[in-house]
Amino acid sequence: MKQLLFAFYFIFCQIQLVGQNGYNLWLDYKKLDDKIIETEYSFISSIYLLNDNNDEILNTAKNILTDHLSTLLGKKIMSEKSQKTDQITLTINTDAVDINGEGFYITSTSNALKIEAKTNKGLLYGTYCLINKIHRKEKIKNININESPKIQNRILNHWDNIDRTIERGYAGFSIFNWHELPEYLDPRYEDYAKANASIGINGTVLTNVNANAIVLRADYLDKTAALANIFRKYGIKVYLTARFSAPIELGCLKTADPLDPQVRLWWKNKIDEIYQKIPDFGGFLVKANSEGQPGPQDYKRNHADGANMLAEPLKKYGGIVMWRAFVYSHEVNEDRFKQAYKEFVPLDGQFAENVLVQVKNGPIDFQPREPFHPMFGAMHKTPLILELQITKEYLGQGTHLVGLAKMYEAVLQSDTYVKGKGSTVAKIIDGSTHNYKITGIAGVANIGTAFNWTGNLFGQADWYAFGKLAWNPYLDASNIFKEWTAATFPNHDKKVAEVSNWLLEHSHEACVNYMAPIGLHHIMAEGHHFGPGPWVDSLFRADWTSVYYHKANKDSIGFDRKNTGTNALSQYHPEVQKLYENLSTCPDEFLLWFHRVPWTQQLKSGRNVWQELVLRYDQGVSKVTEMKSKWDSVKGLVDKETFRSVSDHLNIQSKEAQWWRDACLAYFQSRSQLPFPSETIPPPRDVDYYKSLNYPYSPGIKPKW
Amino acid sequence: MKQLLFAFYFIFCQIQLVGQNGYNLWLDYKKLDDKIIETEYSFISSIYLLNDNNDEILNTAKNILTDHLSTLLGKKIMSEKSQKTDQITLTINTDAVDINGEGFYITSTSNALKIEAKTNKGLLYGTYCLINKIHRKEKIKNININESPKIQNRILNHWDNIDRTIERGYAGFSIFNWHELPEYLDPRYEDYAKANASIGINGTVLTNVNANAIVLRADYLDKTAALANIFRKYGIKVYLTARFSAPIELGCLKTADPLDPQVRLWWKNKIDEIYQKIPDFGGFLVKANSEGQPGPQDYKRNHADGANMLAEPLKKYGGIVMWRAFVYSHEVNEDRFKQAYKEFVPLDGQFAENVLVQVKNGPIDFQPREPFHPMFGAMHKTPLILELQITKEYLGQGTHLVGLAKMYEAVLQSDTYVKGKGSTVAKIIDGSTHNYKITGIAGVANIGTAFNWTGNLFGQADWYAFGKLAWNPYLDASNIFKEWTAATFPNHDKKVAEVSNWLLEHSHEACVNYMAPIGLHHIMAEGHHFGPGPWVDSLFRADWTSVYYHKANKDSIGFDRKNTGTNALSQYHPEVQKLYENLSTCPDEFLLWFHRVPWTQQLKSGRNVWQELVLRYDQGVSKVTEMKSKWDSVKGLVDKETFRSVSDHLNIQSKEAQWWRDACLAYFQSRSQLPFPSETIPPPRDVDYYKSLNYPYSPGIKPKW
Repeated sequence: MKQLLFAFYFIFCQIQLVGQNGYNLWLDYKKLDDKIIETEYSFISSIYLLNDNNDEILNTAKNILTDHLSTLLGKKIMSEKSQKTDQITLTINTDAVDINGEGFYITSTSNALKIEAKTNKGLLYGTYCLINKIHRKEKIKNININESPKIQNRILNHWDNIDRTIERGYAGFSIFNWHELPEYLDPRYEDYAKANASIGINGTVLTNVNANAIVLRADYLDKTAALANIFRKYGIKVYLTARFSAPIELGCLKTADPLDPQVRLWWKNKIDEIYQKIPDFGGFLVKANSEGQPGPQDYKRNHADGANMLAEPLKKYGGIVMWRAFVYSHEVNEDRFKQAYKEFVPLDGQFAENVLVQVKNGPIDFQPREPFHPMFGAMHKTPLILELQITKEYLGQGTHLVGLAKMYEAVLQSDTYVKGKGSTVAKIIDGSTHNYKITGIAGVANIGTAFNWTGNLFGQADWYAFGKLAWNPYLDASNIFKEWTAATFPNHDKKVAEVSNWLLEHSHEACVNYMAPIGLHHIMAEGHHFGPGPWVDSLFRADWTSVYYHKANKDSIGFDRKNTGTNALSQYHPEVQKLYENLSTCPDEFLLWFHRVPWTQQLKSGRNVWQELVLRYDQGVSKVTEMKSKWDSVKGLVDKETFRSVSDHLNIQSKEAQWWRDACLAYFQSRSQLPFPSETIPPPRDVDYYKSLNYPYSPGIKPKW
Repeated sequence: MKQLLFAFYFIFCQIQLVGQNGYNLWLDYKKLDDKIIETEYSFISSIYLLNDNNDEILNTAKNILTDHLSTLLGKKIMSEKSQKTDQITLTINTDAVDINGEGFYITSTSNALKIEAKTNKGLLYGTYCLINKIHRKEKIKNININESPKIQNRILNHWDNIDRTIERGYAGFSIFNWHELPEYLDPRYEDYAKANASIGINGTVLTNVNANAIVLRADYLDKTAALANIFRKYGIKVYLTARFSAPIELGCLKTADPLDPQVRLWWKNKIDEIYQKIPDFGGFLVKANSEGQPGPQDYKRNHADGANMLAEPLKKYGGIVMWRAFVYSHEVNEDRFKQAYKEFVPLDGQFAENVLVQVKNGPIDFQPREPFHPMFGAMHKTPLILELQITKEYLGQGTHLVGLAKMYEAVLQSDTYVKGKGSTVAKIIDGSTHNYKITGIAGVANIGTAFNWTGNLFGQADWYAFGKLAWNPYLDASNIFKEWTAATFPNHDKKVAEVSNWLLEHSHEACVNYMAPIGLHHIMAEGHHFGPGPWVDSLFRADWTSVYYHKANKDSIGFDRKNTGTNALSQYHPEVQKLYENLSTCPDEFLLWFHRVPWTQQLKSGRNVWQELVLRYDQGVSKVTEMKSKWDSVKGLVDKETFRSVSDHLNIQSKEAQWWRDACLAYFQSRSQLPFPSETIPPPRDVDYYKSLNYPYSPGIKPKW
């Protein structure tokens, strides 16, 4: 026996080099305690597929069940050929009425369990639901689950370039190794598919929205097809970004005019070629006439002309076009907040039915906190995709711990009032408000070659939360955090989950405070976006600078978007407009988004704007100190490597929070000229020092080729 | 018991996601068979440090012994405080006469073993020697080992950029995450140090020879210091590349003239600053006045002026300058083969004593096969570092399996004849020929973020071989292969090692044949270097083209470097010159390096040049087919993931070998106009097709920023 215990010890010790922690994500299945197995799961002895048609997705479900149940329960669970009483049965039920094509039922007695769905894909999702419940040690006897995704297209957007750099990617480089495809199939591809399927993600756009036409070249399509062959088994479709000028670059045409017959023919042929190689290709994501990308406006056509040209040949294959609304023109001297709405809302009704317009959560650009985008609710005939950022371009990037689910939840639960109170963004994008026929949600991926996929370990929670909210945008962020921590730290002291939940729960507010409190926005450095740059004042475009947004001078600070200013508020429903335009009802968190106020303006807190600003920056920094000490308290309760990894990243976060606070306060004090409150430690250096810092090799910046 | 077996099974199954294979390199320690433990290693019960001075290197040695012996022997091996009879004892013996400062003795009876060295570093190397012997199941009773490295500075050169791209790196991106240093210490750093220490590598240049001055900025020096703190425990010094113009770029001086007092002061101060942060900093590697890099010639000074300027302030700290001889001037219209020799040999005697000149193995640039560089043997007063390439820039890159040790062995055993027969390159660089006081060898690393470090699994063997030959340049390549396969596939059927050895043994010759047989060189594509481009004829410099080197026309092919041509052969010792200039003694493998011959010239084989060329290309391709079928024969004997990974890469190698063969034969046939031998299948497409192929996003290309 002693010898056997030794044997155990040495098997555990066999991984000699470390560095591989976190690879398993929330799927880190381990054998459960004997006690809980006996109480809750002992009845599981085998599985049975009632309609085994040797379908590849059903096969995936079967393998997941047998492999992972065997691990979790510590006994061999097989798929049997005959039906018994104490099995897990997977059944196709095409007649089911209250689930959709991807939905499932799980029903159980005390000694048998059944997963039912209309399709094999539904069975796959049911399978993951069950496995993950067991992994989290939840009860599965006498349950009755009825689940369907509320949004049809739940899609990751990779801003990955062909050379494996990632625009705004902070977890290393692209996992897609185009050079070695289609022959070399990195095991990561399948593990990536597993992780996505386990949280219900069913699509992935492989390439950057700042697109490269080469991905449509025949040899690259073979590479994409090799990935599609892997992802298909997990119910995941592949999409590509279409560079609007591809007919010129690849097809040697003279124009990319969407109404030109040769251009239309080129796209039709290209789309036929794609579907020959990838029969379930999902479609295109397009960024056009935005930030230098080519588009239909180059030919005096509008966005609908461009989108519809692609939609037409895609339609017969069931493909879709996701057309991004993130546009702002440098010919139009207009508050950037308003431009997308002004360009797109007039086109409502003109898009083909397989076109969706993809809108970022807020009107500017993934800032630490934004009010919801005024296009939500304003397009009655055009389905809108909500685009969330999982990568943390403006939230400290790959090193800061910031539980983004809180931010996602805030935008999803924002009320547009477009069909009366309760017309939340969630209800817009799930199609229930306007009866959209197609629905979608997109998340800009935070995945890279880092061993743990996301750089900061807690970045995994953002990926997880995106998947969960894509499936059901009405979920509560705190519950998602709890699920993730339970799955990520399965056999740990409960304090680890408690601390992790606390960190996820409080970190977004902390980040907003140390970066951009009371509605400050777009005050980051130029080039990289991880540090402060409130002084940035001379770039190619005024609306790329910081001063354009905060407009701080000796007297006042903030952007007047009321009718006395740019009147951007008029793009919202009158109820929302009223809420924000009135200083007494506008939440402090959005103050400087909509109001230009004297530094001495008194706020609800009793402090004036200057005092509030200083306080919030200080609160942001001290919250990070608290986060560090919380994490310190789990030392010894997680393995050394995980502990140190999170700890090292918190040290970076702490250093950078202090930097944001010091630099911003030094700068804003140079504007306001007001004294620091006596309890505040003034920034140690002057503005010129903070201005002089430069980081030309920060990760995630778009390469200059 | 059954339950326990189940337990075993499930522990093994607990790694749910795969993708992590190969991370452990040749250090994949696992418990040995009980039988061999009983016969050979049962006497080992504990270890004892006779001179435990709590030194950090000694601590490393202790941890390696206790951890890994425990794993290998399946019992807990502790370090004890008191001496016993059946221990492994580590002893410092400063009086030892026949080992050097890094050497060691291992002596044993049948029940005790002693590792002795003059320093703790020697004990560390002795420790790894012992552990690896046991890992390879070699006998350790009654042995008597006396080992010292023959070369002092055994250094990896990383061509890694600050943005984590790697010039000519094909295994992903740089493992050095500058952005997150010094706070975030990737566990990979320590694992990298372990791997290097285990094969005797004692230095690493962290940055690209095409250098970026920013690495000398104070904040970057802190990052380097954080790495140095980890590597120091493993006896590894860090080095940086020094950009010659750094005093202008960082110091705001107007000049970088090495004789300017302000410039000299800037470097002195910078070096003082470095040593304050990194007391054991190794020194600088410099590429100057080469391929656009700044250097002393910009100020009409010579290489010795430049090197000596850096050497002077480094000297008091024991630092060295490694000055690269890879230079060729575009003002000098001279055979590139000859230029380094012409620039450097006249400076012999002018370099400070802590300067070493670093010379690539061959006179052109890491071609699949080159004759040895004529500078070896020609610098009597200046120590020469041999620079080998471990990354496979011109040998198929990260995907091809090519056992480079065969190539390293060939150059090390090349005879310069400079002090009579037997004056091999090995004897030049180990200092024995010219009594160099400092000696060195450098390998351009093939390491990246790939899970298995090197992309192709067998790339690990090249890293391993470099370390082994750096320690002892007289070793036999085949024995190194055997060691590596024994360590990499420790508990596998012996067929796996046999097949792996066969692959390593035959692959270099295969690669030369399918790329550049009978002395062809520099016929690769422009930009990327992984595909063929014998037609490349118009680039910025003539000696960047292919036609410059092969000069094929209707009548003849090859580069005349005899006295009827550029007379490059005159740079060799007369004995070597005689060997190569005579068609009857020049080995076919170097034929077109030195001779311009008619296509119809008959060779020793009885075939003419054209026939031989065709045959070799065909042999190269069919050898890869044979490699594939050899590897197929181990299916089931290695884990699935490893099998598929090697297999997928062999598929790429096979496709690309065919491409090289087809494209080169199509091209050379268009020159020679000779018919293909009847047994040969002509290339399926014409030259224009192969010319039209383009791969603008191949990895490893220097970014254009």
